[in-house]
Amino acid sequence: MTASSAGTPAIRALAFDVFGTVVDWRTSVIRELEAFGGQQGVQRDWARFADGWRAGYVPSMDLVRRGELPWTRLDDLHRRILDELLRDAGIEASDDEVDHLNRAWHRLDPWPDAVAGLHRLKERFIITTLSNGNLSLLTNMAKRAGLPWDCVLSAELFNHYKPDREAYLGCAQILDVAPDELMLVAAHPSDLRAARDAGLRTAYVDRPLEWGQPGRYRVAFEPDEFDVTATDFLDLADKL
Amino acid sequence: MTASSAGTPAIRALAFDVFGTVVDWRTSVIRELEAFGGQQGVQRDWARFADGWRAGYVPSMDLVRRGELPWTRLDDLHRRILDELLRDAGIEASDDEVDHLNRAWHRLDPWPDAVAGLHRLKERFIITTLSNGNLSLLTNMAKRAGLPWDCVLSAELFNHYKPDREAYLGCAQILDVAPDELMLVAAHPSDLRAARDAGLRTAYVDRPLEWGQPGRYRVAFEPDEFDVTATDFLDLADKL
Repeated sequence: MTASSAGTPAIRALAFDVFGTVVDWRTSVIRELEAFGGQQGVQRDWARFADGWRAGYVPSMDLVRRGELPWTRLDDLHRRILDELLRDAGIEASDDEVDHLNRAWHRLDPWPDAVAGLHRLKERFIITTLSNGNLSLLTNMAKRAGLPWDCVLSAELFNHYKPDREAYLGCAQILDVAPDELMLVAAHPSDLRAARDAGLRTAYVDRPLEWGQPGRYRVAFEPDEFDVTATDFLDLADKL
Repeated sequence: MTASSAGTPAIRALAFDVFGTVVDWRTSVIRELEAFGGQQGVQRDWARFADGWRAGYVPSMDLVRRGELPWTRLDDLHRRILDELLRDAGIEASDDEVDHLNRAWHRLDPWPDAVAGLHRLKERFIITTLSNGNLSLLTNMAKRAGLPWDCVLSAELFNHYKPDREAYLGCAQILDVAPDELMLVAAHPSDLRAARDAGLRTAYVDRPLEWGQPGRYRVAFEPDEFDVTATDFLDLADKL
């Protein structure tokens, strides 16, 4: 994949989507919600609560994208959604407790192959995040989980959430590579399609357990739609 | 230093000046110039050439700071200075050769204590760059030299070169820490003074060999001017 063939330049950098692609947000958030429930002495369907939290993500970003909210970092969008979910669930907690819970998204565990795969990929490519998570969230997550990024890039640096074109092109620009020397790695076809439309290369990594049951919410795509399709990061390292 | 005392909050993150503080730019650039000279078959006083290159740095950034140049990344400022020095020295080389030489600043070696010291400091603090070098320069440098940053931040992200206040405050803001929870580590009193004036904590690290002969161009400062004074990064880790 990296050798120049048919006029395609070598890949110099890999940019990784993070939530769902690198880390198993759902299992980690459910774990954090259970701990919160234990401390508060309340019992709820925490898996459903986690899914509700995540479901608020795209509409919240769309408020920013449409200009109905000024630029707002993901921590603050997560907090808006969380406050509403807690209110709806009739749960009261202190500001400090809710803030700690909100930072559950800083404490997500990687998929089992992620750290080993990133170390292998780092030997040959610049590896960076390209996530809608804010920079401090991604930095705290990487430090806790041992994710060996060469640098940490975020939609926050471009004031544009993915799938806005500016996020993908901003990533290439700041890494000083051409768009087609940069490959987005993601478990979500919508993200990859937007990256491809901006001129990036694309690698799909299958994460069938992202939403709990195998294959839940999986989006179909054409076999040749992306440059590479991999089962996990170790398979991706084999294929690149 | 990290324990809260007399109302001072704990330090949560360390931001490092890079050129001179983390890496020995002068020895590395001279080495690269000698290799370039060998390839070109030209002999010059490369130490003087390196000093001239570095001497162009502050005036170039001042053009940006005063608005006489639009935002220009350091790679491009380095190239402007280099082109002029090569012209003055009567050296002609291809664009690719000059570009490779210009990226000597991506290939700087760390001071002997830097990598081990950063690993120790990283155990207790978020460690980031806060350099006037552009993000790709700092990322390439870290990858080559094994600098274990938690994230890579640059003046480029704030469109303000240090010592502009915006660079220090932008660093705190993006790390989501208060200015007085962030400590600048630098070998240059001017950088530290600007950081202190912006509300950051400060650590001076002595790098007497930055300019070759011991103590050349060393700037005096008052004994209590900075929060910590250290002989190197290992000493800094002991003191924090």
